Amino acid sequence: MHVLLTNDDGINAQGIQALWKAIAEIATVTVVAPDVERSATSQAITVHHPIRVDRHCIENPAICAWRIGGTPTDCVKIALEALLPAAPDIVVSGINHGPNLGTDVLYSGTVSAAIEAAMHRLPAIAVSLDNGNPFEFETAAQFTRRLLLEMPHHSLPPNTLLNVNIPSLQGDKIQGVAITKLGVRRYENTFERRQDPRGRIYYWMGGQVADEEDDPATDVTAIKNGKISITPIHFDLTNYGIIQEVRNWNLSFN
Amino acid sequence: MHVLLTNDDGINAQGIQALWKAIAEIATVTVVAPDVERSATSQAITVHHPIRVDRHCIENPAICAWRIGGTPTDCVKIALEALLPAAPDIVVSGINHGPNLGTDVLYSGTVSAAIEAAMHRLPAIAVSLDNGNPFEFETAAQFTRRLLLEMPHHSLPPNTLLNVNIPSLQGDKIQGVAITKLGVRRYENTFERRQDPRGRIYYWMGGQVADEEDDPATDVTAIKNGKISITPIHFDLTNYGIIQEVRNWNLSFN
Repeated sequence: MHVLLTNDDGINAQGIQALWKAIAEIATVTVVAPDVERSATSQAITVHHPIRVDRHCIENPAICAWRIGGTPTDCVKIALEALLPAAPDIVVSGINHGPNLGTDVLYSGTVSAAIEAAMHRLPAIAVSLDNGNPFEFETAAQFTRRLLLEMPHHSLPPNTLLNVNIPSLQGDKIQGVAITKLGVRRYENTFERRQDPRGRIYYWMGGQVADEEDDPATDVTAIKNGKISITPIHFDLTNYGIIQEVRNWNLSFN
Repeated sequence: MHVLLTNDDGINAQGIQALWKAIAEIATVTVVAPDVERSATSQAITVHHPIRVDRHCIENPAICAWRIGGTPTDCVKIALEALLPAAPDIVVSGINHGPNLGTDVLYSGTVSAAIEAAMHRLPAIAVSLDNGNPFEFETAAQFTRRLLLEMPHHSLPPNTLLNVNIPSLQGDKIQGVAITKLGVRRYENTFERRQDPRGRIYYWMGGQVADEEDDPATDVTAIKNGKISITPIHFDLTNYGIIQEVRNWNLSFN
């Protein structure tokens, strides 16, 4: 099995390093990851600037990776279209430092990288670890390895990928695995207004989870209950249910 | 009617200026838009840097806007949560210079701004003009005004917004209005490898439409046929159809 591994926390993040090592035990791994943290970049692509690419080697394990001066989606595009001699069997994005639940996935660079892979018709998973002190990366790495061994026995519909969130608990504290739908997470993005030394205004975007639903079928609830959450997601945003109704609007033009 | 207007081509772009003037004839318009071009930024948000905010006035019409040192999604968030004293009746994003069709919408800053508005439970539309020489902004502005007058007579389901694409034709050449689903547009992102004067490698992301389907129900086909396309989209990425099947996978852990 050949795995393309990327993330949005950057190539030196603890999450991708833990996953790299765990997957290397069962597969060939090619890492193509951002040079620095690129979280909250959604599916942004770099079209107005050149994209730097260089090799980045670490000693333990003694392996080399591609370090990319771009977004997670850039990483997947450039890996598949310029760097790799052949397509990988699967693309894995993570381990993200922090959860990507419900509507969060829309902002997530980690999930967007996996969506980009699915757009290239490849199996893909995004893996995120809930906040914890400490972050239990080993639990997330081991479960992802387990999932990678299971996936070849199944096929997902085209355009579909798996969004995986893992509680930050030691393995024996995990309460099971739930296959979920995306929940809703609303933020209060308390913007904080400040003035710089020259009198000019700027804002910081804060952001705290304001309310979460308690629908038992969602990813949000699964994580709250100490379960690993797997949500099958796709990228067809069409709301088919409403098309016929909008056809009845009066929108004649000329 | 109070309209919040934003875009991803920046506050000085021709598209937003044309729309601003057309909507001002029927509504109160507040413009909160990026300082410079921010296309292809998807739903990225600015959390690692401060966001500059200042007032930007133009003379004809003599009105002032908010100019934001951030992404289109930042603009919607900061407008709704910090700048506007009350929520607008609708959020309009555009007119984008170039189409946002099919899978393109995932990369689009224009569409993402409208998605952000829908996440705030507001009616929202994204408006994009197909490439043309010249760009027929007036056609797009006039149709958007027509749509804004129609929308208060209907209600859309929660989480649903309209993605509007308009052919770059003079008004009397428009072949009608089609309510569509998102099509598929595949790109060849021909990456071009170069060397800088110091011998270091960089790439430019090119990108040409490689194939488009010809399903008559899609936005891609509507635009090809000279029709205005309106696609109702939502932001629930869950693939409900596959949840039950994934529950049968063997994913026990510990």
